[in-house]
Amino acid sequence: MNAEIITIGDEILIGQIVDTNSQWIGQELNKIGVSVYQISSIQDEKQHILNALKEAESRADIVIVTGGLGPTKDDITKKTIAEYFKDDKIVEYPEVIENIKYIFKKVNHPFNEIQKYQAQLPSKATLLMNRLGTAPGMWFYENNTVFVSLPGVPYEMKGLMKYEVLPKLQATFKLPFILHRTIMTVGTGETIIAERISDWEDNLPDFIKLAYLPSFGRVRLRLSAKGDDKELLAKEIEKQVSELYTLLPEIIVGDDNETSLEKEVGKLLKQHKKTVATAESLTGGKIASTFVSVPGASSYFAGGFVTYTAALKQQLLGVSEETIKQFTVVSKEVASAMATGCLEQLQTDYAIAVTGNAGPTTDHNDKSVGLVYIAIASKKGVAVHEFNFGKPREKVINRTVTKSLELLRAAILK
Amino acid sequence: MNAEIITIGDEILIGQIVDTNSQWIGQELNKIGVSVYQISSIQDEKQHILNALKEAESRADIVIVTGGLGPTKDDITKKTIAEYFKDDKIVEYPEVIENIKYIFKKVNHPFNEIQKYQAQLPSKATLLMNRLGTAPGMWFYENNTVFVSLPGVPYEMKGLMKYEVLPKLQATFKLPFILHRTIMTVGTGETIIAERISDWEDNLPDFIKLAYLPSFGRVRLRLSAKGDDKELLAKEIEKQVSELYTLLPEIIVGDDNETSLEKEVGKLLKQHKKTVATAESLTGGKIASTFVSVPGASSYFAGGFVTYTAALKQQLLGVSEETIKQFTVVSKEVASAMATGCLEQLQTDYAIAVTGNAGPTTDHNDKSVGLVYIAIASKKGVAVHEFNFGKPREKVINRTVTKSLELLRAAILK
Repeated sequence: MNAEIITIGDEILIGQIVDTNSQWIGQELNKIGVSVYQISSIQDEKQHILNALKEAESRADIVIVTGGLGPTKDDITKKTIAEYFKDDKIVEYPEVIENIKYIFKKVNHPFNEIQKYQAQLPSKATLLMNRLGTAPGMWFYENNTVFVSLPGVPYEMKGLMKYEVLPKLQATFKLPFILHRTIMTVGTGETIIAERISDWEDNLPDFIKLAYLPSFGRVRLRLSAKGDDKELLAKEIEKQVSELYTLLPEIIVGDDNETSLEKEVGKLLKQHKKTVATAESLTGGKIASTFVSVPGASSYFAGGFVTYTAALKQQLLGVSEETIKQFTVVSKEVASAMATGCLEQLQTDYAIAVTGNAGPTTDHNDKSVGLVYIAIASKKGVAVHEFNFGKPREKVINRTVTKSLELLRAAILK
Repeated sequence: MNAEIITIGDEILIGQIVDTNSQWIGQELNKIGVSVYQISSIQDEKQHILNALKEAESRADIVIVTGGLGPTKDDITKKTIAEYFKDDKIVEYPEVIENIKYIFKKVNHPFNEIQKYQAQLPSKATLLMNRLGTAPGMWFYENNTVFVSLPGVPYEMKGLMKYEVLPKLQATFKLPFILHRTIMTVGTGETIIAERISDWEDNLPDFIKLAYLPSFGRVRLRLSAKGDDKELLAKEIEKQVSELYTLLPEIIVGDDNETSLEKEVGKLLKQHKKTVATAESLTGGKIASTFVSVPGASSYFAGGFVTYTAALKQQLLGVSEETIKQFTVVSKEVASAMATGCLEQLQTDYAIAVTGNAGPTTDHNDKSVGLVYIAIASKKGVAVHEFNFGKPREKVINRTVTKSLELLRAAILK
């Protein structure tokens, strides 16, 4: 079963945004046994849309279109889709207006007439109601091909895919079973992992594929099994995952598809009935907000301090002026004092403290951009780790967040 | 002048990687006055490549192909390109072997025979020597169309584009100028903006296009002007931007292509010589880390508190137990007390405090998910604003961050 993805709009073509929607859709389709044959990004222009739909229809069973559904004048997608389906007409769908009024009421926003335009859709469309936004999705089944049109706003598109499109595709087509399992690892690079598991990889059965998914120092290994016998697939994947645990015991943190390092660290803290607090300089609160991004974090994450200036490191965390003068703010000693101060004040089991220079310029004379100190304090004492995360600023900050979680995990397990 | 970009390989189609190459190429081509008409990601498969080349040639003057040039056996791009150009032959280019030997010597890597394959290229190719890797780029000029084939490794592709492809394109074609200007607005939705500027939009000259780019409550308006007379374009864009300022005086925060709300608020704080601190509950430090994402933030952003639990709101910000008991933690009164406590402790000019329920479940009995209070305190007093940002969790958090910056901006300008 083949699909094509068409994204409509100038933003991708002029390079203003990266097309992350297509990546996500590609992943989700793969999970239910649909292969993506081609992804095309095209202009918001009638003839271009018509041609792209025709080309995609000639090659694929499923055509998913994103973007071009906003309420403003630069969106001509709906009219063009109506024209594509043998000159279908545009009609008004009252349930869409009701949905928009409902959404607007919830956020105390007056309904305005221009929003009515969102309810004008091709008459052949099966509505996919969008509970997260005003532009509905549309489903068409014409000439044995499914056409789906979705808004381009990522969380709206994702909601519609998850709750409407993927289940409907599974109901419409006989799809093979595809099982995925994602194993999360930390602290080791892709090539070293590949070397360590190369014999195992060579002996994988034909129906299981392995993919490496690296990002910011975490490598996820995705196993995908495809076939008709669901039980056999599940058994075989289980066997391969347990072999991976034997081969990479110290770096695997979890094997749940939805997992993330922050979720795994959260689980671990809960299991051990431990709490954590943070004292952040260069990350400015991003470690704390990463904890908080997991629902239910309040049972193990208390809160923390953002001490961006040297003055606040003294005032809020009790770092002494002499320590800062002697070692500078970007130092092992300051990181250590920050972590200890945070732990004492908030009385948690662990405290994470970070200080460093994220760049772009060197603010602290002799310290280079990318230099970061991460301290993990507990009642047993404090350990400080030095890193150089290079550049640019965004990467230094993100690497610091990931590494902090990884070091906390190691400290809990020690 | 139109271009198309074709990326070859499975990694993008299965969603393993995001296609950042095309974004970068799109940006660079735009800068020299070339518009990208379509981007296509296709399989590493002969017939698919031949079809994609033919379709692209029918629409564009320039076709840029990336990927599919590695040394392993499954790369059929070169043979397919040779076939595409009237059955061209594959020949060996000795200068490519010399380049590979030079590169391998630099990294102390022995030259192996498999690498010779990299030197076998279509005879009609003009070589684009790759100093950063072993796969050379290729340039063809056939039937008034330029075809370029580049390796998919981002830094190799970028080097070849910058030093070979872009200069050659400028030498080959007479290119128009393209100017972009992005105007950032806050606090008003796309449809309301569209209504307010609809007359202006209808009267835009033909050579200027307008696009709406909404995300998390900020809408950017992008004007793109294209033509031969650079001065005329600049003058006209300037005129249209100043008209926009007249039409939307209170919601435009900046008109620099690189701008963001956090940069504009930072500029404003610097101009007014004011400082700010934060006290965050549901956002868990994300407002603080958004300030810190801007280089140089230390001149106006001091730091702050992450008080995720009720206990820390009392301990660190001095919110009284009675206030929490009487009004619950998600209340106007607690937001107000948090902001006041933060301001008093950190002695900044402004303090932002947020408390709310990001979901997914209602933790605080009678309060609905999405309810958020944002308080802005200054020496003049404290103002609290109530919002309902709906769901899901991620959206509630992001909308709270944006709205906080927006309210701070309004407070400074008042």
